[in-house]
Amino acid sequence: MIIAVLGPRGSYSEKAARQWLAENCSEDDQVLEYCDDIQDVFVSLKSGSAKIGITPVENSIEGSVGVTLDMLLEYDIDIIGETVVTIEHCLLSRGKKEDIRIILSHPQGLAQCRQFLKDHFKDAELRTTGSTSHAAKLATEFEEMAAIASRESAEMYDLNIILPNIQDREQNHTRFLIMAGPDYSTNSCQDTIRNSAVPEAKRFFKTSIIVYLDRDRPGALYEILGEFASHGVNLTRIESRPSKRSLGDYVFYIDFEGHINDEIIKEAIYNIESKVGMLKNLGSYPIYKKDHL
Amino acid sequence: MIIAVLGPRGSYSEKAARQWLAENCSEDDQVLEYCDDIQDVFVSLKSGSAKIGITPVENSIEGSVGVTLDMLLEYDIDIIGETVVTIEHCLLSRGKKEDIRIILSHPQGLAQCRQFLKDHFKDAELRTTGSTSHAAKLATEFEEMAAIASRESAEMYDLNIILPNIQDREQNHTRFLIMAGPDYSTNSCQDTIRNSAVPEAKRFFKTSIIVYLDRDRPGALYEILGEFASHGVNLTRIESRPSKRSLGDYVFYIDFEGHINDEIIKEAIYNIESKVGMLKNLGSYPIYKKDHL
Repeated sequence: MIIAVLGPRGSYSEKAARQWLAENCSEDDQVLEYCDDIQDVFVSLKSGSAKIGITPVENSIEGSVGVTLDMLLEYDIDIIGETVVTIEHCLLSRGKKEDIRIILSHPQGLAQCRQFLKDHFKDAELRTTGSTSHAAKLATEFEEMAAIASRESAEMYDLNIILPNIQDREQNHTRFLIMAGPDYSTNSCQDTIRNSAVPEAKRFFKTSIIVYLDRDRPGALYEILGEFASHGVNLTRIESRPSKRSLGDYVFYIDFEGHINDEIIKEAIYNIESKVGMLKNLGSYPIYKKDHL
Repeated sequence: MIIAVLGPRGSYSEKAARQWLAENCSEDDQVLEYCDDIQDVFVSLKSGSAKIGITPVENSIEGSVGVTLDMLLEYDIDIIGETVVTIEHCLLSRGKKEDIRIILSHPQGLAQCRQFLKDHFKDAELRTTGSTSHAAKLATEFEEMAAIASRESAEMYDLNIILPNIQDREQNHTRFLIMAGPDYSTNSCQDTIRNSAVPEAKRFFKTSIIVYLDRDRPGALYEILGEFASHGVNLTRIESRPSKRSLGDYVFYIDFEGHINDEIIKEAIYNIESKVGMLKNLGSYPIYKKDHL
């Protein structure tokens, strides 16, 4: 089974993939396909070249990954899982700290270390790359370059860890989505989940939807949240994103506890559908829970 | 009066400043202070070196400007106005299209042209700068460099417009906040607003607040929106941002119609205060309205 992640080797997406597979798949015939950017993960799912795709969706310091949210609206995928990766950004280089003039990373990596960069490398040139591991790979070229990337990338690309743990807050976690393309139903991982020792009813599920409200109806968002509240459904996240039609016009990404097949959720969704301009169901999947979060 | 904006000359923030001043200030003794980045605009307000600061807060394609939202929570400022600028990003260079290897812009500029860059400059190196005008200034150095910036920047830095209107959607608008520091009360612009020909009651105001909900109380967001709904207050925007404490913990930025001194708003806010962990009032200001939006 082919799994599309952000590449090249050593990315946090790869880490997310390995973590999720270890917990959810008994087989070990998975092959990673390394994509240049987040959109390519979705393209790969659509074309069927990969069966599963994994991309970051939100970070505890810098918030939503806008491209992922936009692609969730644009492409037809199913979210089948989530996993949370602890992020420890390091400054990696072939050279010494005083030689560094150019710093490379994914835009999220640069943003998560914004204060660090301002305090220590105010005059450095900042370059964005498709992933943190791509930054590490490029940083091998010149001693004046450094990458903001993981410890694993340092090892993989033979770079020195100039400074460890450089993000602006010590606690740094990124949530990744595990997504399936159109022909996923025959997949072995899902069978593993289905046949897992924990019965479905005892596991906790989360569902993700996108809604577009009718702009001319004030209070529409309140009414929608009211459907969840009156059905006793707990929201875990609500995020707005531009509809890209005009300024002040938004779509809402809502995550809530429960499975789309639960009677109570079905009822809430049925009621909500009549109140919104568009509702897209992104999928129901087991909630990732770790005590340390 | 000194007004802090993103610099150098030719930035969209400068355009926002001139637009807002033309509509709101009768005097013309304003001096612009050009800052390196968004945080510096807030620093300048805090130190008193500038009386007014202007930064972008959201864009119709790429959404919120995270740094501005974070700074609104961190610094004590008052929002006294807003303005909306039409954005037309151009690809600017000294050289020819086929020579371009490096593209520079503010992260928002790069993100608003993501698809364009993927389609036309997949292998170009992307560098981030503090502003689009800073990108234009740097692009004067080498023919292989191009900036994503405004038409005005092309003229200002003597660059060629290689391609006009390159953002991913034709319609592109950015909302800017006009903010005042601690000693703003004596300011002449505010007097102008106060003495404006349009009486206060006839102008429409918007208020911005930040709330931090009690994480352990499901439905808290719903209850808050309920206070607005039951008072007939129309929300214009709701945006979540990581609290940076842990993943899944958010603060909410809420904009609504009405002035903090309106009786009905006072009542709603009073009720909300008892339901939240923190409420920060960012200010009430005239709504920017243009028919073309």
